[in-house]
Amino acid sequence: MSIKKHFFVLWVIIFFVPAVVFSYASESDYKTDALFLGTKGENSDFFLDMLNMMIKEHINWRQSFHPEDKPAISKEILNSPDAIDTRKKVKKALSELSIRMKEGSNPWFSSRYLGHMTSDLLLPGALAYMAALLYNSNNVVYEAGQATTKMELEVGLQLAELLGYDQKKAWGNITSGGTNANFQAIWYARNLKSFPLAVKAVLPDLVKGKSRQKLLNMTVSETLDLLDKVKNSTKYEAVLKHTVKGTGVDPKEIGKLLVPQSRHYSWDKAMDVFGIGTENLITVPVDINYRMDIDALDHIIAGLVQKNIPILAVVSVLGSTEEGSVDETYRIASLRDKYARQGIGFYYHIDAAYGGYIRSMFIDESGAFMSLEQARKTAQKRYHITESASWPQEQVYEAYKAVPQADSVTIDCHKLGYIPYPAGAIVFKDKRILSIQTFHAAYVKDTRANAPVSIGHYVLEGSKPGASAAAAWTAHQVSPLNVSGYGQILGRTIKTANMLYDLMIKTEPFETKNGRKYRIIVLIKPDLNIVDYVIKEVSNPSLEAMNKLNQAIYDECSYVSGNLMKKDFITSKTTFSPSEYGNIPLVFVRKCGLSDAEWNKTQSVLVLRSTVMTTYLSDESEFTAYFSNLIEIMKKVISKIEI
Amino acid sequence: MSIKKHFFVLWVIIFFVPAVVFSYASESDYKTDALFLGTKGENSDFFLDMLNMMIKEHINWRQSFHPEDKPAISKEILNSPDAIDTRKKVKKALSELSIRMKEGSNPWFSSRYLGHMTSDLLLPGALAYMAALLYNSNNVVYEAGQATTKMELEVGLQLAELLGYDQKKAWGNITSGGTNANFQAIWYARNLKSFPLAVKAVLPDLVKGKSRQKLLNMTVSETLDLLDKVKNSTKYEAVLKHTVKGTGVDPKEIGKLLVPQSRHYSWDKAMDVFGIGTENLITVPVDINYRMDIDALDHIIAGLVQKNIPILAVVSVLGSTEEGSVDETYRIASLRDKYARQGIGFYYHIDAAYGGYIRSMFIDESGAFMSLEQARKTAQKRYHITESASWPQEQVYEAYKAVPQADSVTIDCHKLGYIPYPAGAIVFKDKRILSIQTFHAAYVKDTRANAPVSIGHYVLEGSKPGASAAAAWTAHQVSPLNVSGYGQILGRTIKTANMLYDLMIKTEPFETKNGRKYRIIVLIKPDLNIVDYVIKEVSNPSLEAMNKLNQAIYDECSYVSGNLMKKDFITSKTTFSPSEYGNIPLVFVRKCGLSDAEWNKTQSVLVLRSTVMTTYLSDESEFTAYFSNLIEIMKKVISKIEI
Repeated sequence: MSIKKHFFVLWVIIFFVPAVVFSYASESDYKTDALFLGTKGENSDFFLDMLNMMIKEHINWRQSFHPEDKPAISKEILNSPDAIDTRKKVKKALSELSIRMKEGSNPWFSSRYLGHMTSDLLLPGALAYMAALLYNSNNVVYEAGQATTKMELEVGLQLAELLGYDQKKAWGNITSGGTNANFQAIWYARNLKSFPLAVKAVLPDLVKGKSRQKLLNMTVSETLDLLDKVKNSTKYEAVLKHTVKGTGVDPKEIGKLLVPQSRHYSWDKAMDVFGIGTENLITVPVDINYRMDIDALDHIIAGLVQKNIPILAVVSVLGSTEEGSVDETYRIASLRDKYARQGIGFYYHIDAAYGGYIRSMFIDESGAFMSLEQARKTAQKRYHITESASWPQEQVYEAYKAVPQADSVTIDCHKLGYIPYPAGAIVFKDKRILSIQTFHAAYVKDTRANAPVSIGHYVLEGSKPGASAAAAWTAHQVSPLNVSGYGQILGRTIKTANMLYDLMIKTEPFETKNGRKYRIIVLIKPDLNIVDYVIKEVSNPSLEAMNKLNQAIYDECSYVSGNLMKKDFITSKTTFSPSEYGNIPLVFVRKCGLSDAEWNKTQSVLVLRSTVMTTYLSDESEFTAYFSNLIEIMKKVISKIEI
Repeated sequence: MSIKKHFFVLWVIIFFVPAVVFSYASESDYKTDALFLGTKGENSDFFLDMLNMMIKEHINWRQSFHPEDKPAISKEILNSPDAIDTRKKVKKALSELSIRMKEGSNPWFSSRYLGHMTSDLLLPGALAYMAALLYNSNNVVYEAGQATTKMELEVGLQLAELLGYDQKKAWGNITSGGTNANFQAIWYARNLKSFPLAVKAVLPDLVKGKSRQKLLNMTVSETLDLLDKVKNSTKYEAVLKHTVKGTGVDPKEIGKLLVPQSRHYSWDKAMDVFGIGTENLITVPVDINYRMDIDALDHIIAGLVQKNIPILAVVSVLGSTEEGSVDETYRIASLRDKYARQGIGFYYHIDAAYGGYIRSMFIDESGAFMSLEQARKTAQKRYHITESASWPQEQVYEAYKAVPQADSVTIDCHKLGYIPYPAGAIVFKDKRILSIQTFHAAYVKDTRANAPVSIGHYVLEGSKPGASAAAAWTAHQVSPLNVSGYGQILGRTIKTANMLYDLMIKTEPFETKNGRKYRIIVLIKPDLNIVDYVIKEVSNPSLEAMNKLNQAIYDECSYVSGNLMKKDFITSKTTFSPSEYGNIPLVFVRKCGLSDAEWNKTQSVLVLRSTVMTTYLSDESEFTAYFSNLIEIMKKVISKIEI
């Protein structure tokens, strides 16, 4: 046996054996359950205890600041009729608030809610937000939120690690939401794109011999190297003034933004906001799985290259808003590399606002990203996802694996991070990119050399709640971003979504009390935990009639027809039309047994959309009962519509 | 006596007499005190009672949703060792959070904190946020936050009324902060500016005979009338595609943005973000009161007109970030009207992120805006602002009066509204402007004719916390936006700021234990409640030395030199330099007894900046004691620096 072989064996023992032990071990679901408030407030004693503890800590903090100072509000004032009267007014207003909230809120907490991307909140996140709110720190500047700025930077690096980036090189910050995170990406990408030309204008020697065309097609890493050089020159500010920041956008020059048809509408908004114009947005068709069609992407890029039109950026989606589909990031990264070798560079961003946290399902407790085989075994053994789902599909797995090849990623803590709004986030692979932004206000600038970072310098927002950072930080403390933390939570949702999908495709047509027969047809096998489907009257040959039925079901199962508290089931819906998805929905129309002529005539398919974020439905036998009940509810709802 | 005279007398009786009775009546400060938690948590029993009440209401709500459903988390699970262990982990994380928050937060609540724009929170706002957070509604779309969307729209209209707009015509929404509110204004203004040319491209008949130059100089109301016409045509979307939204920005054509030197840095950022370029930002000099110099503005506009350069917008500030100065809105509105008559139109926005709520001090309980005489009497009799302050100065009063002449106003609820972050807001005078934006996503679109408004269609943000709306709404319920509500609260801060100013200018030079003499010099008599000042060694002739001293004082009185809990006083600072303020700071340099040569050499003045948002210092005799103590603290701090 050679020494090499010895090392191999050793390596196997050190890395594989514990990986098997740790990754596949079935964890108790009880841990996850204890992290939520519960559909009936099962955890409310603990919740109230913790909240009262945190508030008492806060009040102690106030009291410990110059204990010699007398209280600002005297006992006399507190007990005065005016104060008593004021407190009555406060109580009255809060009571009215409670009434309004109870009448006009969605029961996200309930298993009967399978609609938008919302669910019960993680207790530690909600509690942390509530407690931190009292300190009301502001992460625009270190001075206004020392503790929470540190937490935001920590959360940024935790997310960087989750996404597979090198923590030493990466940067992450919290944003007001996914939209603002996407905005921040396009802001950086746009200004960076204009940087080489700005260098040519101010420091031409640095880019000597490079044509305008070449400068507009530099790769991100080449441009960052150039930025690094300029940063240390006295002309740094002068160069920045020659970027888009100073000169404004030239929409003819800045290049095209390529997004899949399934992109979030914030990308269209971004083209408007950032002055590039929606006419410079190119939507790449999706394939039958509602993932970006990479061949089409290649074809579009080739066409642009041929016409000498620069590409600003390519954006792909990890968990599309409407379908939960996962674009094949690894193929996009390969394309990017292929074109880079041809001298065509562009920025690559992943919009994982929804799907980002799912990556924790593939990270073992040592922090390593699993192999496909390990991931599948973990899915079955640890998350109890049915073997027949063969989850994750290879493309989904590879897509998650290749995430760190992107230049930046949007990932929302207030979606699959289960913390309160507002908490989107963005992570950049290479923090040198921050130097493309330099907005300072005199009163937020700290000139000391090693002054702490003020996040406001780098983000779109000004004032931003430190409480968001506290919530994400605390949630991550309790639930690490790997198999044992968020993986466990999200595993339950994927398991449930697969059970829902399975039962939907297996269920026989059902009959309403009026004797009419209906069946459920699912759009696609979900990549993650969003299930789109329609209910169709078996004998109905009309797409328009099917749409009407599903619109009516939606109306019955949403706020549209009144008090949500009286609903048996709540869902959301979405519509597929050629202007958004080309002819891809025809595949589904056919699956529904409808003719091509129906699609050509109606040009729109309305589907019901159930985001399965709840962790409360993961028990198999209970889910089966739940599903039977769901069918009964559907029968009732449809009977009502039929009459 | 003529009938007219009879009516006049009647009018006097009806309007004036009650106005005198209501407006000048001295209100008990006790009411205001009961609205805050207190420096030592004096109101904490009430706070905890209310919070527990709201949470119980929330849990009742959960339980009342399908009471027949069994709880998702069984007793067995809740009592399992795994759940107990998990709860221990949660408690540990929360305890660590508490420790971090207490170590790294600012004691905003204390009277010893006079720095940034933060203070103790209004109890009803904080409580409402915490309670609403549990419902986690999302105001991006009505469906995801029915109750809170309604509250946001109500708050928008309340703010419209506060600002003097016609509620029937206005629109207001909450934003993630003042920066995003300013962004929303420039977004609308920019796209509106490009609208007439878009009409020319698609529906030329509608603007027949109008030159390109004329179309780029249409007034806002002319453009809105045009928008109204187009909205009802089938070409509406086609026209919008020809605006900046579709085509991107042409920075040469979109016009210049005129802002005062004292503007918030978000305007510079906006020029970058919106693709217009900072080189198209023109900063208008300020006068010696740090208010926009209106003659200079007129001169700049005239110069641009002469060169056929369009003006995108003029922005003025109501309560500048660094000085709290109030630009003379009425003179700007007059200029706008003057140029409109010459065929030169531009958008007018007021950035009242800080100062907006102050307008409540001038609104009586019947909703009427007071006369200057009434306002001054109210200031003295009701808010107890010293007569010698003659507050409000006429310019400040007139500036507030003319607010509704602007096309839009930024106003932050999380600043002088005393509610938690994040809650900026923007109000537009004429809601027809909303039609310049139309971003819809299939899953947020509700196609029914009278479907409720989804705020996400009109704002920059996507997901946005409904809890912000709940907080502002509840605070406004308890404290109406007039003399008796916010007026009363803010009156105390203006009173305190004036006392601080008075004592600062009256105080004799003080001596440290080392026998060196110092005096306090105030930048300007404050328009509102921000006081900028320096401490100067009497014998010191050097500006550089004065700057060093004040930097050192700031370092001692901020996080820079360590634990804030050990500080006797906490302040913020800012710096005035020619690149930002031209030669205006020279006036102050001279006031400090320094030579012009010092200014020419050093080119920078560092001042300490105390925002007086606390309501806890309004008692005169207590304030006098506070001020003496402050001088003692300064002596101690300076002695430490001297050694």
